[in-house]
Order: sequence, then C-alpha cells, then structure tokens
Amino acid sequence: MRCEIVAIGTELLLGQIVDTNSSWIGEQLALVGIDSHFQVKVGDNFDRMEMTIRNALDRNNAVICCGGLGPTQDDITREVIAAVMGAELRRDEAVVEKIRIMFESRGRVMVDNNRRQADIPEGARLIAQMPGTAPGLVCPIGDKVIYAVPGVPHEMRTMMQGTILADLQRRAGETAVIRSRVLRTWGNSESGLAEQLADRIDQLDTLGNPTLAFQASGMEGIKVRITAKAPDEAAAEAIIRAEEGLIRGLLGDVIFGIDDQSMETVVLNMLGARGLTLAVAEGLTGGVLSARLSEIDHGMAIFRGGAVSGDLAVAEMPGAANAAAAAANVRRDFGTDVGLAVVAAQARDEQPPGTVYMNLAIGAAQYAQTVSLPGDRDRLRNYAVINVLNFLRKTLTDTSI
Amino acid sequence: MRCEIVAIGTELLLGQIVDTNSSWIGEQLALVGIDSHFQVKVGDNFDRMEMTIRNALDRNNAVICCGGLGPTQDDITREVIAAVMGAELRRDEAVVEKIRIMFESRGRVMVDNNRRQADIPEGARLIAQMPGTAPGLVCPIGDKVIYAVPGVPHEMRTMMQGTILADLQRRAGETAVIRSRVLRTWGNSESGLAEQLADRIDQLDTLGNPTLAFQASGMEGIKVRITAKAPDEAAAEAIIRAEEGLIRGLLGDVIFGIDDQSMETVVLNMLGARGLTLAVAEGLTGGVLSARLSEIDHGMAIFRGGAVSGDLAVAEMPGAANAAAAAANVRRDFGTDVGLAVVAAQARDEQPPGTVYMNLAIGAAQYAQTVSLPGDRDRLRNYAVINVLNFLRKTLTDTSI
Repeated sequence: MRCEIVAIGTELLLGQIVDTNSSWIGEQLALVGIDSHFQVKVGDNFDRMEMTIRNALDRNNAVICCGGLGPTQDDITREVIAAVMGAELRRDEAVVEKIRIMFESRGRVMVDNNRRQADIPEGARLIAQMPGTAPGLVCPIGDKVIYAVPGVPHEMRTMMQGTILADLQRRAGETAVIRSRVLRTWGNSESGLAEQLADRIDQLDTLGNPTLAFQASGMEGIKVRITAKAPDEAAAEAIIRAEEGLIRGLLGDVIFGIDDQSMETVVLNMLGARGLTLAVAEGLTGGVLSARLSEIDHGMAIFRGGAVSGDLAVAEMPGAANAAAAAANVRRDFGTDVGLAVVAAQARDEQPPGTVYMNLAIGAAQYAQTVSLPGDRDRLRNYAVINVLNFLRKTLTDTSI
Repeated sequence: MRCEIVAIGTELLLGQIVDTNSSWIGEQLALVGIDSHFQVKVGDNFDRMEMTIRNALDRNNAVICCGGLGPTQDDITREVIAAVMGAELRRDEAVVEKIRIMFESRGRVMVDNNRRQADIPEGARLIAQMPGTAPGLVCPIGDKVIYAVPGVPHEMRTMMQGTILADLQRRAGETAVIRSRVLRTWGNSESGLAEQLADRIDQLDTLGNPTLAFQASGMEGIKVRITAKAPDEAAAEAIIRAEEGLIRGLLGDVIFGIDDQSMETVVLNMLGARGLTLAVAEGLTGGVLSARLSEIDHGMAIFRGGAVSGDLAVAEMPGAANAAAAAANVRRDFGTDVGLAVVAAQARDEQPPGTVYMNLAIGAAQYAQTVSLPGDRDRLRNYAVINVLNFLRKTLTDTSI
C-alpha cells in the first residue's frame, strides 16, 4: 500500500507558511506501515492541481490532499477532485446546516461563500469527524482512493486519526492493529542506549514483533519507539506494556516520560503529586526555564515564579556556593517548598567553559551537582534548562521525597 | 523562468525533519520574480529521484535539488544528476584537498567516504561558495539547468544567495537588480495600514516600480515589503530608500524595525544607544519576556534580569497600582535605569479578560498604559510580551529619553 501526500496552497510555494502537515502525515503513515514515496506541494491552480493528483493516483494506491477546502474562490480542491473522479459536485444541505450551526455557536453569521464548503463530489463520502467548517472527503476511484482534508493542522489530524489511517489499513488488507509508544530518555547517547539494549534488539530481530527504533531529537533527548502489531487494540497494548517494562528494567531512570510528555511536564507532575511548589533562580538561562515551566503550568499553581539575572554571583563566593545561596534564597523569597538554581561558572571559578552549577533546596536539605555542557551560548542555555529539570527529577526520585 | 524545487531525503518523507529549505527557497525565488509551481520531496532512492528530477526538468527551465550531497552511501544526488545529464562522475582532487583541510582545521581526520563528496558530473561546475564539506553544483543540460545544494540550511542559503539566484536571473534575461526591504510594524491592522497607504499604492500601481506587499505575521506583526527593480545595486537601494522615507512619513511610529529586526532587538538597541539598563517584572508572561530579551542580549549587559511571578499583586491594590509598584521595585532591586512591569488584571479589578497593565519606571518618572488583548492564555502571554516591549519603545521615542 502506497500513499502520496499532496499539499495544496500557493502560500506554501511562496514560503509564507511552512508545510508541517505533510511531515506529520508522513510520520503517521510510516507508523502504520504504509509507504509514502513522494510528497508534492502545488499552488491553487486547477490544471496543475489536477495534473498533480492524477500523477499521484497513477503511481500510488491512495492520495491524501491537504488544503484548499476553505470557503474562498481559490479553494478549489473539491472541484479538482470531482474532475479527477469524472463526477459532478452536489451541495449537501445537511452539511450546510451543520456549518450554519457552527457559525451560530460562535456568535457569527455564515456568509454565502461557506455554502461552497458543502459541495461534495458524487460518489464521495464525508469523513465523520468535522472539527471545523470544512468537511473532509473519502473519494473512491476504482480500487484506489483520494482523501481530502483541510490544511488547518488540528482539523487534519482529527480526520487522519479518526478515519483515514484506519481506512488505509483496511484497504491494505491489514487486519492487525499497529500501535506504538515512545519512551523518552535524557542522559545517555544513542550508541550508549543501543549497547544497553543490544541483547534485546537481537531477540526482537528474530521475533519480529514488537520492533524498537531510536530517534535522536536534540534538546528533546533520544526517543526509543516500541511498535507492536496485534489482532486487536488490547493485545497490541499488552505487547507494548510488556516491552516497556522490559526496557525500563534495562535503561532505568534515563527514561523520563512517554510519547508527548516533555521534561517540564514530567517534573511539574511529580511536584504536583507530592504537593510541592517550586521557585527557580536563573543565573544562566535568562528566563527560558521559567518560560518553559509557566508554558505548562499556566495558572502558576506549582511553579510560583523565579528570579532571572545575568549574574547571581555574590561577592567572592565560588560558583557552587553561589548556586546553593541562590536556591535557598529563591525558595525563601517565593515561600515555596523547593528552590532550584542554575548558575554558570565565573572566570574566578577557573573551570572550563560550559561548567554549570545546579542546586536544589528542599526544606532544610540541599542537593548539588556540577555538569559540563557542550555548545555555544544558545545551546548551552537550552541544555542547561533540561539538565537542571532532570536533576530535579532524579533527586525527587532518588531521595523518595 | 520557472524553477522547481526537489527536496531529497527519506527522513523528510518520514517526518523526522520538517522541510523548511523548500519554503525558504520558494520565498527567495518569488522575491526575484521567478515562478515555482511545484515543490517535491523524494526519498534517497535512485529511480524515484531520477524520475522526479527528469519530470521537474521537463516542465521547468531550472531545478534546484536540495540534499543528498553528504558522504554516506545513501547520499546519491551526484550519481542521479550525472545519469540525468548522461555524464560520468569524475573525482576533483582539488575538492578532496579542500575537504581534507576543512577536517584538519576542525581537528578531525577525513574518512575515505568524504572523497565521494568531490565526485562531479562531467560538464558541471562547482558553486564558488562552500561553507561545509559538500560542494554545490551547477549542471547545465541544453538550455536548462539543475542546481545541487546541501540540505544543511546555512550551507544551502549561502549558495543560493552567492550563486544560484543571480544565475537564475541571468538565465531569465533579467539584467535588472531586484532588491527588497521589509518594514516591520506593530499596532495597526492590515486593513488599517492599507488604508493609510491607499493613495501611495494607487500611484505605485501606475508606476509599477517599486512595489508594496503586506504580509501578516502573527506575533511578528505585519510586514510591509518594498521591492525595487533597477539597473544596478546602487539604483535599487536609492529607490528603496526613497520609498522607505515616504512610507515612514505615512505610517509613523508603528514601524518598529526593518528586515530581520525583532521587537526585542530594536528595544535593546535603543536602550544601549542611550546607555540605559533594564530589569523586568513579569506578572503575566511567566518568563517569556526575559527569555526573549536574554536570547538577544546574551551577556545580559543591558537586560540585567527580572522577577517572574504568578501573582505580583500586593494586598488590595488595584492592577494599575500593582504594575506601578512592580516596575519601581524591580528597578530598585536590580539597580537598573529602567524597570518594566506587565501584570494581568485580577478578579478584584473587575475588568474584562485580557486586560493587561503595563508600567515603566525611568528614574523618578513612571509611565502607565492599560491594554485589552485577545486570545487564549498562550496567545495572550505572547501578545503581552510584544505589547509591553512596544510600550517601552514608544515611550523612549515619545519622551525623547
């Protein structure tokens, strides 16, 4: 089963919008074992869209068209697909009504143009999910199929996950359920992880199911993806759960989270579960640590705030002592349970560049760690943010606080 | 003149990397008046790459191939282009030597695979710029041309700007120089700007040169792009300078910067020019303001630091009074010339959601402004950051400090 992705919109060609949709769709297709050999961007032009879709249909079993389902005159994906199908467009009044109600619920009035969004090629069926005003389409052509989804990312994703991926798998004769889980790690290299998992990878090469794959993701750490195939959801979940347990046993606490969990989400959840509040002192990271924490903890119920400074250094104190003072001070000033400080070495510390002091004050106790981080100033800051959060995570785990 | 962009790499199809290169190239082509009707992503597969490049060459005058010039066995762009040209690859020993020296200067040893990067199709010429170990290629085929550039963004950009854009313009018979400048605005809507510029836009429609274009860029404000065509660089620059002066006269101080200047860059430059230091109190923006300022002012020489808190509110003081106290306090605590505070209205302020109090303390003087911002919490925070920086910018301008 092969599926081509066609992203539609002149703004994509002009570079006004980066096409992230095709990347996401490509990733989802790969996860369920469907090949995608080409991804094409084409502008809002009837002839070129038709040529592109026909060409894609010739060399694939399925085509996903993304974009061009809006209400304006340059949104012509419906018309082009009808032409490729050799079908007429007919207006679906039930869809018109659905769109009208959607506008009404937002306190707005539907304009006439929006009726065009309810034009459906004869022989096509609607995708059940419709999070916006543009209906998605499943358009069979012989034993092949064209899908049409809106360019609005969350609408497209809802339709892919709700209908298209399953429909493609069914068409591929794939009765198995394919599921995956990402274990997110921080603190070991890809080759280091591969070494720890070498025996298990050998076993799985023989077994064939589940499979493991590594993906280095820079500041997001290294991801280990478990993919399982099974007759049904429950069986796939059971395979993944068993494999996850096994891998956690082998890798230990370099695994900080799963799937979309970021380091800051995990740390805030740990603090929340323990009823602890946090304040931070940023002597190196210039507000990036605070920004990432408050991005998750919108109400700032757990992360109460922080002090940002170019130089938290006090008098002639060495870096480690400065970090300790900063952690204790910020904890006291904000009246939180936990104070966390990250401070760069100063010239007087006589340390190599990239030396970073971290300190954690919890109640009367203080924990310290010094790390040596790579990279220019920009990367150093970002690595320092992840490292200091990971330091907090591991300390909470290790000390059983 | 039409040019197709072919992005090469299986990792692009799998969604492991988002293809931002094609977007950037598309934008550059549009700026110099070259059409791009299709952009294609294809994996590291000989037959499919050859088919894609031949197809692109059929329907265009030029093709830019991006990626697949690395040293590993799946980097086969050189081989595929040679096949399309019907030419042999020959190893350029001068390039081998260049690569060897590049490795040496980084304290590394060149491995044998890297020699492959010096394989050049007969009849192709090297792109003069070579910022990495992969040489770029100009490969004429009849009166058409294939360019090959590496997938590493900064290497690709250097070659586009140094060689390819000019070569395409020359091939298009375009002897004119096309240059553009972006005027960046904050504080007026696209329709508002268009109204202020209506007469001038009418005049330019008749004149035809220079041209004006608007581009809404969300949190980055609305961009007004001036594009001028002239026989040479100096004449193009003169046209742009004159037009910029005219537009600045019409739009006034909603223009905060040009080209790549962000709001924080502009504000830090203004403070720096006046010898002023800054501290901020973030009662709403959770560290995002500090992070953006320190991202530019790495050494934190002007932006000295800030206080981040979920609630800067004091006792029963109303929001505006809280913002004033926070600005004065942060200025005192950090010992800076300027204190800047941004605070959200609390329930007791009895204001509509999105009400934000801003205050600026300079010496003994204080300036206040209240704004009502749209959006959910995430957008609100980001809008508040730009608004409070713009408030500082305008106050510095208006008060002639």
